Amino acid sequence: MKSDQVVARARKLSRPYRITQGSTFRLKDFNPDDTGEFTVEDKPRAVSALQSGVEALTKLQDVLYASDRWSVLLIFQAMDAAGKDSSIKHVMSGVNPQGCEVHSFKAPTSEELDHDFMWRCMTRLPQRGRIGIFNRSYYEEVLVVRVHEAILRSQKLPPALVTKRIFKDRCEDIRNIERYLARNGVAICKFYLHVSKKKQKERLLERIEKPEKNWKVSAADAGERAYWDGYMTAYEEAIQRTATGDAPWYVVPADHKWFTRLVVASAVVETIAALDLRYPEVDAAKRKELVRAKRALLGSP
Amino acid sequence: MKSDQVVARARKLSRPYRITQGSTFRLKDFNPDDTGEFTVEDKPRAVSALQSGVEALTKLQDVLYASDRWSVLLIFQAMDAAGKDSSIKHVMSGVNPQGCEVHSFKAPTSEELDHDFMWRCMTRLPQRGRIGIFNRSYYEEVLVVRVHEAILRSQKLPPALVTKRIFKDRCEDIRNIERYLARNGVAICKFYLHVSKKKQKERLLERIEKPEKNWKVSAADAGERAYWDGYMTAYEEAIQRTATGDAPWYVVPADHKWFTRLVVASAVVETIAALDLRYPEVDAAKRKELVRAKRALLGSP
Repeated sequence: MKSDQVVARARKLSRPYRITQGSTFRLKDFNPDDTGEFTVEDKPRAVSALQSGVEALTKLQDVLYASDRWSVLLIFQAMDAAGKDSSIKHVMSGVNPQGCEVHSFKAPTSEELDHDFMWRCMTRLPQRGRIGIFNRSYYEEVLVVRVHEAILRSQKLPPALVTKRIFKDRCEDIRNIERYLARNGVAICKFYLHVSKKKQKERLLERIEKPEKNWKVSAADAGERAYWDGYMTAYEEAIQRTATGDAPWYVVPADHKWFTRLVVASAVVETIAALDLRYPEVDAAKRKELVRAKRALLGSP
Repeated sequence: MKSDQVVARARKLSRPYRITQGSTFRLKDFNPDDTGEFTVEDKPRAVSALQSGVEALTKLQDVLYASDRWSVLLIFQAMDAAGKDSSIKHVMSGVNPQGCEVHSFKAPTSEELDHDFMWRCMTRLPQRGRIGIFNRSYYEEVLVVRVHEAILRSQKLPPALVTKRIFKDRCEDIRNIERYLARNGVAICKFYLHVSKKKQKERLLERIEKPEKNWKVSAADAGERAYWDGYMTAYEEAIQRTATGDAPWYVVPADHKWFTRLVVASAVVETIAALDLRYPEVDAAKRKELVRAKRALLGSP
């Protein structure tokens, strides 16, 4: 398949899940079980489409790196067991690690709490020419911190600044800062992997059953399920307040991992392809220099 | 003098130079030669006021550090020879360096150019409890870069993002990000040291005449005087667009260094005093613990 066709298909596949206008977004309009044009029987066709997507991505990354102007920031957020780690693994497995960095954000350290809440992520932004992946991000500050407000009180903020509108303000700040980043050459793509409560239960049970998956699960993960509705509200409002043309959210169905990966890969392909990158052109002077270098090389022992 | 009186005097001294509403600001309303209530003969009285200010600052810094909630960010911008270095030296000489860091920003490195324009400053923000001083800052990006637009073309931005409104957009982004920082516990104070073109000439000549000052001057400094009016317009518009209650600008008369220092010290004292900080209170449990520790200490050899 030609690369134009791969990009066109990627756009077609990812567009239904792309939110650029938060105000009209409702989480209930999105079905975790959705598999788009594919039935479960079509899975092999989807897997082969993913393969083409990953290959296209490898080429796009090369020109991203060579042109050295834009950087790409991919943010992954989701409930436990929605497939963040495995999506990153399967979608990004073809890219050159020299131009790609993954940062996983856990509970903040005391040095991190000594700064504004986006600081630890801002210090890890990708350089021009590179892809940066945030496995969880500053969005945790309007998700888990909102669901468990006790965390907020341990964040060392001056008490007068812990207001009723703090989560609204944080979303406003995130939106503004993402626009600022976009203006400075960061192409941002945010993924919410939308898993159902039922499917999460299945996957957590599987993690408990299979010894080789035990390391991925803790008793706390099961406990968090009690806050499911609170999380859904927090996600919905965060997406409503921060989905923009500069920094779209993709609400990716996550009950079928093969489809999740395909949509994520498609969104990344579409995002980088839209930058319309070119390899740097060599001017006449530089060309001359290269010809001289060639001559010298050929003439040397 | 009591500390309340020192703070009240600091407020009185610095308020005339404090801009919190950019829209009505005009640079021509501010006189570089201004010395407030002091005549040149009053200089010894001003020097003693500076001394009280510096002492007050030492105490304020101690409670800032102990309470560990707010940080303080002081930004210095000015034309060459306006007195940035000497103001930092004389005003901050009494503070504990453990709680204070100065960062001087020169021409950006290639790693810095690989990021958004505020990145190098954001990574160096002060921790809670500390004072951070930026000797030049991200404001250079709407000052020198605006005056010499060729610099912009060397900044590796994607060409489509170098628009006509880039400096307006940058000011909007700065304003939003400073509000975000304020919401997260950073008290921001920005100083423009306002020197006259005539006084700058005197000081540059002095730097050339005195061998021990030669290191502070280059031929380029004199060359920049050709762009004086462009710089004044850039400063005026930057202040108009970014002076807010969250992050005020102080336009400090800078033709008399003794007065410059006094106003800067007063502004810093006022800013930290306004945070109304207290030493952390020890609760009953902790008090008990301390009593036990005392008993153990006294009973030990």
